[in-house]
Amino acid sequence: MATVLGVNQYGKAESRVVRIVRDTPVHEIRDLNVSTSLRGDFSGAHTAGDQSQVLPTDTQKNTAFAYAKLHGITSPEDYALALGRRLLEATPAASAAQVRVEEYAWDRIGDHSFVRRGGAVRTAVVTVGRDESHVLSGVRDLVLLNSTDSEFKGFLEDEFTTLQEADDRILATSLEARWRHATTDLDATDWNASYDAVLARVLETFAGTYSRALQETLHAMGTAVLGDHPGIAEIRFSAPNKHHFLVDFTGFDVEGLTNDGEVFVAADRPYGLIEAQVTRDDAPPAGDAWLHVPGFV
Amino acid sequence: MATVLGVNQYGKAESRVVRIVRDTPVHEIRDLNVSTSLRGDFSGAHTAGDQSQVLPTDTQKNTAFAYAKLHGITSPEDYALALGRRLLEATPAASAAQVRVEEYAWDRIGDHSFVRRGGAVRTAVVTVGRDESHVLSGVRDLVLLNSTDSEFKGFLEDEFTTLQEADDRILATSLEARWRHATTDLDATDWNASYDAVLARVLETFAGTYSRALQETLHAMGTAVLGDHPGIAEIRFSAPNKHHFLVDFTGFDVEGLTNDGEVFVAADRPYGLIEAQVTRDDAPPAGDAWLHVPGFV
Amino acid sequence: MATVLGVNQYGKAESRVVRIVRDTPVHEIRDLNVSTSLRGDFSGAHTAGDQSQVLPTDTQKNTAFAYAKLHGITSPEDYALALGRRLLEATPAASAAQVRVEEYAWDRIGDHSFVRRGGAVRTAVVTVGRDESHVLSGVRDLVLLNSTDSEFKGFLEDEFTTLQEADDRILATSLEARWRHATTDLDATDWNASYDAVLARVLETFAGTYSRALQETLHAMGTAVLGDHPGIAEIRFSAPNKHHFLVDFTGFDVEGLTNDGEVFVAADRPYGLIEAQVTRDDAPPAGDAWLHVPGFV
Amino acid sequence: MATVLGVNQYGKAESRVVRIVRDTPVHEIRDLNVSTSLRGDFSGAHTAGDQSQVLPTDTQKNTAFAYAKLHGITSPEDYALALGRRLLEATPAASAAQVRVEEYAWDRIGDHSFVRRGGAVRTAVVTVGRDESHVLSGVRDLVLLNSTDSEFKGFLEDEFTTLQEADDRILATSLEARWRHATTDLDATDWNASYDAVLARVLETFAGTYSRALQETLHAMGTAVLGDHPGIAEIRFSAPNKHHFLVDFTGFDVEGLTNDGEVFVAADRPYGLIEAQVTRDDAPPAGDAWLHVPGFV
Repeated sequence: MATVLGVNQYGKAESRVVRIVRDTPVHEIRDLNVSTSLRGDFSGAHTAGDQSQVLPTDTQKNTAFAYAKLHGITSPEDYALALGRRLLEATPAASAAQVRVEEYAWDRIGDHSFVRRGGAVRTAVVTVGRDESHVLSGVRDLVLLNSTDSEFKGFLEDEFTTLQEADDRILATSLEARWRHATTDLDATDWNASYDAVLARVLETFAGTYSRALQETLHAMGTAVLGDHPGIAEIRFSAPNKHHFLVDFTGFDVEGLTNDGEVFVAADRPYGLIEAQVTRDDAPPAGDAWLHVPGFV
Repeated sequence: MATVLGVNQYGKAESRVVRIVRDTPVHEIRDLNVSTSLRGDFSGAHTAGDQSQVLPTDTQKNTAFAYAKLHGITSPEDYALALGRRLLEATPAASAAQVRVEEYAWDRIGDHSFVRRGGAVRTAVVTVGRDESHVLSGVRDLVLLNSTDSEFKGFLEDEFTTLQEADDRILATSLEARWRHATTDLDATDWNASYDAVLARVLETFAGTYSRALQETLHAMGTAVLGDHPGIAEIRFSAPNKHHFLVDFTGFDVEGLTNDGEVFVAADRPYGLIEAQVTRDDAPPAGDAWLHVPGFV
Repeated sequence: MATVLGVNQYGKAESRVVRIVRDTPVHEIRDLNVSTSLRGDFSGAHTAGDQSQVLPTDTQKNTAFAYAKLHGITSPEDYALALGRRLLEATPAASAAQVRVEEYAWDRIGDHSFVRRGGAVRTAVVTVGRDESHVLSGVRDLVLLNSTDSEFKGFLEDEFTTLQEADDRILATSLEARWRHATTDLDATDWNASYDAVLARVLETFAGTYSRALQETLHAMGTAVLGDHPGIAEIRFSAPNKHHFLVDFTGFDVEGLTNDGEVFVAADRPYGLIEAQVTRDDAPPAGDAWLHVPGFV
Repeated sequence: MATVLGVNQYGKAESRVVRIVRDTPVHEIRDLNVSTSLRGDFSGAHTAGDQSQVLPTDTQKNTAFAYAKLHGITSPEDYALALGRRLLEATPAASAAQVRVEEYAWDRIGDHSFVRRGGAVRTAVVTVGRDESHVLSGVRDLVLLNSTDSEFKGFLEDEFTTLQEADDRILATSLEARWRHATTDLDATDWNASYDAVLARVLETFAGTYSRALQETLHAMGTAVLGDHPGIAEIRFSAPNKHHFLVDFTGFDVEGLTNDGEVFVAADRPYGLIEAQVTRDDAPPAGDAWLHVPGFV
C-alpha cells in the first residue's frame, strides 16, 4: 500500500477587516470577518517541505486588508469575488480560491458614530475557480420565535417514546441559511438588494406559516425564496429547535395558578437539529460551491 | 487560631424565564435570564450540614418562574423587586435577597412572531434587605464606535513606551454600565422610561464627545446621565478599549495605495480596560447594593 | 420550474449522557456528549406536515440515555454503533442513522471521586446504513507546540508579501483529526486500544518531525498513523496555525535586553488554517461516512 | 449637587505572554494570560483629557512582555509581584498596581515539544501598593465530581417547593477558589510548592468528605487548607452546583430497565451557585486585596 495526499486547502482565517469610508463628514462603516483558502496542487509543501508554490497565509491576510481599499466593500459577495480572483491569479498552483465572509451590521448614531446592531450575521462564501465561480449568500444567528400556531403530533412511537403530543407550542430556532446563486453574470448582481429581499421573505414566511414541525417551516421558507428568485438555485438550512418547555405549575400549592402557554423555560441542551435543503429541479450543478463550508452538506 | 465562616450567599443562577402574554391575538414576549441569591445566617448548612434554614435553589428557581405569572414582568426591575421580596419573606434566616436579571429584546414580525434583536442586553440587580432595598439598572454588550474625533497624546513615557501619539483614531468599546437608583419610592418608578432615557443619553454623549481618552468619554457619559436624572445616585462603567489598529500599507508594492484612516484591523486581545465611577456628591450610601456584582467594585 | 427537497437529516444534538458504573465500591465514569440524526425519506414531514414516519428527536434522546444502561459504554464507537443500529431499526423510513459522540476524560481522585482532565476531547462519528456502516474516530482540542525545529521559507511572493522568512519559530496548533476505519468487523475492534495508539503516534510524530510548514507535519502524522494501522483507510486534519509572534524588544530603552526566541505573544485572530487528508491508495470508498461532519470535507 | 469621580482603574487586559527557556536543549515553557491595572489619582484624564500622569496601557503591555525576560517567570505570583512593583514605580500618580495572571499548564512530549494539559487554570492576583502588597493565589475550572456520598434533605419548604429529598446524588462543581497569603515576606515564599499543596488538599478533602450540601464541602475544604497553611489568611470559593439529574426510565416500555444511580443528564442552566469564604479569626485586614477581583466579594 501507499499513502496519497487527498483533498487539502490552506489559508488565513478570521481577518477582522474594518473599512471606514470618510470621503464626506458622514462616515460609512463595513465590518467584516474574512477567511481565505487556496486549493490545488500543493503536494510539494505537504510531502517535501517545498513552499515555492505557496502564497503565505500572511500574504492572503495582507491582500484581504489591501482589497478593502483597492477594490472597496460594497457587499460581502462583491468584495469576496474580487479578493478570490486576485488570490487565484497570484497563485499558479491553485485551482480555486475560497473566500468566506461574515458581516456585522452597525446602526448610525451620529455622523461618525455607530452602535453595533447585534442579531443576525450576514454571510457569504465565494469560490473562484479557473473555469467557474460560485456564490453562496447567507445568514446565521437569526433567532426566530412563534408563540403559537405550532403543533407536533401524529409522530412515530416506540418503546422509548414518552413525548406528549403538542397542540400549541412555542417554535423557535436560531436559523443558519445559505443559498446558492445560479446567475452567470455575478458582477451585475445587486447583492445587497438580493440579501434584503431573501431575508424579508424568510421572516415573512416564518411568521405566516402554521407549523406542524420545524421541517415544514423550513420547507415553506425555502420554497418561498426560490419562488421569488429565479437566480437562486438552492437554499440550505441548519436549524436548531430551541426548545421552550412549558413550566409545570401543578406542584405549587397556590390556588388558581395556571400556565396556559404563558411561562416557559428556554432550554440550552439537548436541542433538536434539522438540516434541510430545497433545490430547483433544474438547478445547475453545485460543483465545489459547498466544499469546506462548515456545517453544510 | 480558629476559622470562621465569612461572607456567603447561595442561589440559583441563570433560570431562563420566557413569558408570553397572550390575552389578545397580538402576543407580547419578555425574555429573561434570572439569578437569585440569599444571604444571611446559613452557618448551619456550612458547618453542620443542617439545611433547615435553607430554601433550596430549586425552590428559588420555581419561584422565579411562578412570579413571571403571579406578579408578571413589566420591567426587569419591577419583577426582580417582587421576586426578591418573596424570597426574603420565605426565608427567615436570610438578611437579604439579591436578584440579577438580564433581558433580551425581541422585535415583532407578526402578531405572535418575533426576531431576537441582539446587541445590547438590559440588566438589573436588585437587593432586597430587611430594612432597605437597592436597585441597579444597567446595560452590557453595548458596542459603540467613533470613526474619528478621538486622539491619545501627551501621555507619560518610560523606557518601555513605544506607542506613537495618535491625532485621529477609532474609539470603540463594548460598554457595560450600571447605575444605582436613589429613589426611595421604588414602586412608583417607571423603570422602562428611565432605562430608555439613560440609554439614549449614553449614546448621544458618546456620539457628541471629542475624546482625548476613553476615560474622558466615560466621565462625560456619567456626568450627563447624573445631570438628567436626580434619582440616580451613581453610575459605574467597565469599558474595554476595543483596539482598531490602522493597517500598515507601506510594505506593499502597489503604487498610490494609501491608508488615511480607512482600513483597520479589529484586535481581540490584549485590550485596554477602563473601570470608572461617577457619583453624586450627596449620594446616599450604597450599602450592599454592589456586593457580589461581578466585575464592579 | 419546481422545487424539490434535497439532502436532509434531523435529530437531537448534544445530549449530555453521564454513566456511572457502581457495581463495586470503586466507581467508573463515562461522560459523553451525544448527537443523533436520521436520514432518509422524510419528505412527508417537510412538505405535508406528516410526522407518521418521524421518530421524535425526544425519543432519540431517550434512547441515547437508555442505551447507556442497556448496552453500556465501553467506548464511544461501540456505544454509537449500538445506538445507531437501534435508531435505524426503529425508523423504517430512515436510510441511515448518524451518531456523533464527544467524550470528556476524568481522572480518579478517590473510589467515587473524579477530577475532569481537560485538554483533548475524544470523538467518534458513526454512520449506520441499511447495507454498510462507517466509523470515524477522532480527537479535537489537542493543543500541541514545538518551541523550535520549525522554519518557513522559500515561499511564493507577490506585491502584498511582507512576511520575513523564519529559520526558527514556534509551531503550534489546536489539532482536530478524524480517521476512518476500513475494518469490516466493527464489533471485534478494540476501539480504546486503537485510539490510544493513534494518539500516541500523533504526539510522537509531532515531537519528532522537523517542520518546514504545518502541512509537512500533518502529512508526517497522517503517514505514520496509516503506516501503523492497516485497518485505517484515511485520516483528515483541520489544524489552525496558532501563531506565536516573537515580541520586538528593539524599541525598549533597556541595555542588553534581547529576545532570542524567548518571549512570544500568543495571537488569537487571524490564524492560518490548514485542512489536509492522507489516504491509503487502496482505501475502500468512504460512502456517506463524512456526510454532515462539520468542518471536514 | 455636583458629580465626583469615584473609584477607577485602567490597564491592559489579557496579554498572552509565552516564555520559552532555551538555555539547554531541553526547553521549558510558561504560558500566561496577564492583565494589569493602575489605580490612583488619574482625575486629570477623566475630567480634562490630560494624559500626563497616564502610563499607557500599551506600555503596561510592553512591560509585561519585557519582564518575562528581565525578571523571568518562576511562578505567576513572583512574576506578578515584580511586574506590579515596576508599574507602580513608573507611575507616580498611581497608588497601587494590580496584576492578574492565569497560567495554562503544558505537559512535555519531547525536549522542545509540549501538549497543553487543559483542565484547571492556576490564577494569581497581586496588588502592589505604596505601603503594602497583597497576593491572592487561586484556581479556576477545577471540575470535581463525587458519584456518591452526597445527600440533600431536611431543607426549608414553602408552597413553591417541589424538590424531593435526595439520599444519594452526584455532587459536581467547577470550582473557582482564591486564597489570600498573610505572609509578610512575600519574596521568600515558594509559590509553586504552596499552590501544589493547597490544590492537593482541596482534591483530597473533596474526595474524602461526605456531603450534606455543597456548602458543607466548601467549608471542609476551606478549613482544611487554613489548617495546613498558617500563612494563608482566608480562602474564598465560587462554586456552581453542576446538576446531574437522574434520568427517569419509568416511562420506557422495557422490562427490567432500572436506573439505580447509573445514568444521569448533565444540565447546563440553571445551576446552583454557592459563594463562601472561610477566614482565620486573627487574619490581618484584607485592605484592597479583593478590589476589582471579578466574581468575588
